[in-house]
Amino acid sequence: MNPFSWPVRIYWEDTDAGGVVYYGNYLRYLERARTEWLRAKGVDQSQLAAEHGVLFMVRAVNVEYQAPARLDDRLLVTCEAVPEGRTTVIFRQRIFKEGVSAETERELLIDATVRVVCLDGRTMRPRRIAEYIP
Amino acid sequence: MNPFSWPVRIYWEDTDAGGVVYYGNYLRYLERARTEWLRAKGVDQSQLAAEHGVLFMVRAVNVEYQAPARLDDRLLVTCEAVPEGRTTVIFRQRIFKEGVSAETERELLIDATVRVVCLDGRTMRPRRIAEYIP
Amino acid sequence: MNPFSWPVRIYWEDTDAGGVVYYGNYLRYLERARTEWLRAKGVDQSQLAAEHGVLFMVRAVNVEYQAPARLDDRLLVTCEAVPEGRTTVIFRQRIFKEGVSAETERELLIDATVRVVCLDGRTMRPRRIAEYIP
Amino acid sequence: MNPFSWPVRIYWEDTDAGGVVYYGNYLRYLERARTEWLRAKGVDQSQLAAEHGVLFMVRAVNVEYQAPARLDDRLLVTCEAVPEGRTTVIFRQRIFKEGVSAETERELLIDATVRVVCLDGRTMRPRRIAEYIP
Repeated sequence: MNPFSWPVRIYWEDTDAGGVVYYGNYLRYLERARTEWLRAKGVDQSQLAAEHGVLFMVRAVNVEYQAPARLDDRLLVTCEAVPEGRTTVIFRQRIFKEGVSAETERELLIDATVRVVCLDGRTMRPRRIAEYIP
Repeated sequence: MNPFSWPVRIYWEDTDAGGVVYYGNYLRYLERARTEWLRAKGVDQSQLAAEHGVLFMVRAVNVEYQAPARLDDRLLVTCEAVPEGRTTVIFRQRIFKEGVSAETERELLIDATVRVVCLDGRTMRPRRIAEYIP
Repeated sequence: MNPFSWPVRIYWEDTDAGGVVYYGNYLRYLERARTEWLRAKGVDQSQLAAEHGVLFMVRAVNVEYQAPARLDDRLLVTCEAVPEGRTTVIFRQRIFKEGVSAETERELLIDATVRVVCLDGRTMRPRRIAEYIP
Repeated sequence: MNPFSWPVRIYWEDTDAGGVVYYGNYLRYLERARTEWLRAKGVDQSQLAAEHGVLFMVRAVNVEYQAPARLDDRLLVTCEAVPEGRTTVIFRQRIFKEGVSAETERELLIDATVRVVCLDGRTMRPRRIAEYIP
């Protein structure tokens, strides 16, 4: 089965004077894919925050940069979740660059692992993740 | 009398693939200077928000881009405030590029006007600005 | 005839601690819509830059903030171009918040005018825009 | 001996609707400190890029988030470099939150390792780092 994936287009705002995407911006695309993975499961983070005061906070990221993205590139960001204990999820995520045509292979740009904890935004104490993600 | 001014250094994060600062990022430098102008007056926005629920929200910006900034440039952002009614302040702001030496002239990069209203962050209703800025 | 429009989703990266979208980030959405308007006309900016050294540089922006966007909001950004002389285009752009259902009205958040000049990225001298935009 | 360190102030642009700094933005502060570490050694990256076409590209980051920063916080970002082979440097970096008074302890927020390679921006091939960093 294919993992969940989400498309991202690269605009001027994403690039830097090196002519490539700024290294910190890939964390934005990883987060967009996690948010859309949650939305596909019916989880609305703004509602979770407003009604339960619950946030998903990143505890660790591990990113390997294989090749850079550039202006106008079309990327595909994947998202696979593995529970770790009752309050934490490990996301295994990859970012590919789409080929210009159907025959062209996708190219792996980014290989990442993101550790996310579910917590009460007011007390900053962990919460059982199964209560909020089906 | 010289207007209040605040220094800004340009890093990779600020630039885009055109080799210059991304046009939207100048609004960040304008905001840093307004925040430091407030801080110099003893106004702490995080305290204002936490204790009174009061925010300063931008209602309009008008920016003229005279020349672009580049990586490693040292900028100087000015900030002059003119009250407009009881709930609004007009900021006249400029961004200069510092010369490489004391003999070099400053170069004007940005000429901006920013209209800011003081309001209650929960009700979004205007508040008298004189209560919060001395 | 309806103007060209482009959808934008609001993620965590777009918001600030005031609970709304950071005021400078709307300039990103305006730029995405201009880029997609160009792409729809067959104009590829990375190719223009690589082959002709030609950039579109913003000379002035005028933004009125009517209402704020928030996390998870779906926006629609419009883009209408009016030529001004041989080297400049004025973009009239609006940002709407999509309603939660088909019955709900769109809400106007942002009303903006952006003045863009076509120039040679190396010499920074204006170029005839009609050579690059059909 | 104390490691090189660089101060960072948190503004509205840095925060998100969770009320804390957006997790991807810490990579900006890490990069600012590396750039200032280079500048303190007399290395000017814009000059390196213009004259030699040489860039420092991040190959891997490993970030542990211990505690979040918030609006108006004053941070201190450290930077220690360990060479790895002829073309790579490992940066060990930490981000602390400054206490409100001299008596208050610094609090560790971020613990990070960043692997950077020196390369030719045109060919993307590694270059001997000792030629560019004294």
